[in-house]
Amino acid sequence: MLRDNERIDIIPGSDFKIIQNKDKFSYGTDAIFLSHFAKSKGKVVDLGTGTGIIPLRLYAKDKVDIIYGVEIQEEVADMAKRSIELNNLEEKIIILNMDLKELPEKFGRNTIDTITTNPPYMKAGGALVNPEENFAISRHEIACTLEDIIKVSEYLLKPLGKFYMVHRPDRLVDIIYNLRKYKLEPKYIRFVQPKLTKKPNLVLIEAVKTGKPDLKFYDPLIVYNEDGSYTDEISIIYGGPSR
Amino acid sequence: MLRDNERIDIIPGSDFKIIQNKDKFSYGTDAIFLSHFAKSKGKVVDLGTGTGIIPLRLYAKDKVDIIYGVEIQEEVADMAKRSIELNNLEEKIIILNMDLKELPEKFGRNTIDTITTNPPYMKAGGALVNPEENFAISRHEIACTLEDIIKVSEYLLKPLGKFYMVHRPDRLVDIIYNLRKYKLEPKYIRFVQPKLTKKPNLVLIEAVKTGKPDLKFYDPLIVYNEDGSYTDEISIIYGGPSR
Repeated sequence: MLRDNERIDIIPGSDFKIIQNKDKFSYGTDAIFLSHFAKSKGKVVDLGTGTGIIPLRLYAKDKVDIIYGVEIQEEVADMAKRSIELNNLEEKIIILNMDLKELPEKFGRNTIDTITTNPPYMKAGGALVNPEENFAISRHEIACTLEDIIKVSEYLLKPLGKFYMVHRPDRLVDIIYNLRKYKLEPKYIRFVQPKLTKKPNLVLIEAVKTGKPDLKFYDPLIVYNEDGSYTDEISIIYGGPSR
Repeated sequence: MLRDNERIDIIPGSDFKIIQNKDKFSYGTDAIFLSHFAKSKGKVVDLGTGTGIIPLRLYAKDKVDIIYGVEIQEEVADMAKRSIELNNLEEKIIILNMDLKELPEKFGRNTIDTITTNPPYMKAGGALVNPEENFAISRHEIACTLEDIIKVSEYLLKPLGKFYMVHRPDRLVDIIYNLRKYKLEPKYIRFVQPKLTKKPNLVLIEAVKTGKPDLKFYDPLIVYNEDGSYTDEISIIYGGPSR
């Protein structure tokens, strides 16, 4: 079941297990926050699923019908598949080792209820990228761009289907511009701030396909108290599958 | 100099005076925050200038070459003109009682260094509007829309000219989408929050004509301490012309 340098961890807020490789592929707090933020239902697709953390957290929380975790990198897709087997969830969570740009052909138009994604944050053509680097495809827009993800999501989602993404605030213009361009109307934004007085370092966004323009903000999610301890809300997010 | 119900106030952070009519036209904190946030220079245009508060605050702070305050409502434009005279600034601040959509013809393309605007916040066709209501044109997109303002600004600004706006966060999608559509790239966002833990109720945005995509956030501007007193930063904004 385990390969070199792999280990089994318990997923925060659930009894599920997950295989991680700390040198290569492990989930971040971003994925934890997104799966806490998203309200998934019906037929769900997680784009760029990595270790499968988001499908496992969503299933623990929302008991949806079925979740497809799509991952282009063979090695981590294989790791995610083994994590699903470890939890006996093969009938609920399907890991698809494929390019998300091929999903329109696989699923067809207007077929999905909920899409979640924790995409690569770094813009293609931005910082220098060593393609041999672990995570390069997870971190940089090498295999797909933000626009690819949004375009595919618009195609797959049913009208009024929900799209949930976590990203960096410095990409907010690209995010909002492309969401509206592809008729995924941004409805809720929640910023994540390291501390109360600090600017945000992550943004959580909910968009609705063909939704009416009406953006609302949640109070920010604050990670640390002034004394460096976790805030109560972060403790709850890590402690249980609640929203 | 003064008409019925008018009075003369001192402008916060300056020795300048301003005429206000508390029943009809008076400035809000939004205009104070925007004039604090904006770094104006050269030839400046303030769109929808109302009482003239923003030109007066900008001139006190930045000593720019010339500021045009554009206001379509005759009554408040007249009030603003009298305020400029009261401060002997007729050679520095020119109030134009005209429709901003006529500015391209007046100034020509690529002629302005800095544009500021505290526009109507309410979307046309949204809430019911009584056109007799004082402020209706100041508060609702009756005389011009957000897109009109952004389109005119793109036309007037020199390449790399700066655009500064204060608005409501619930219009952020419209703002960002239209700014990028008209090549005014959003570069800085600062949210204004009533208290530390609360979601923003205003957004300050700086965009640069034909600027490169690179959005940065400032730490939020917090208005009240937990005990209901003003924060130090708000006291400074109201106390002096500093940034």
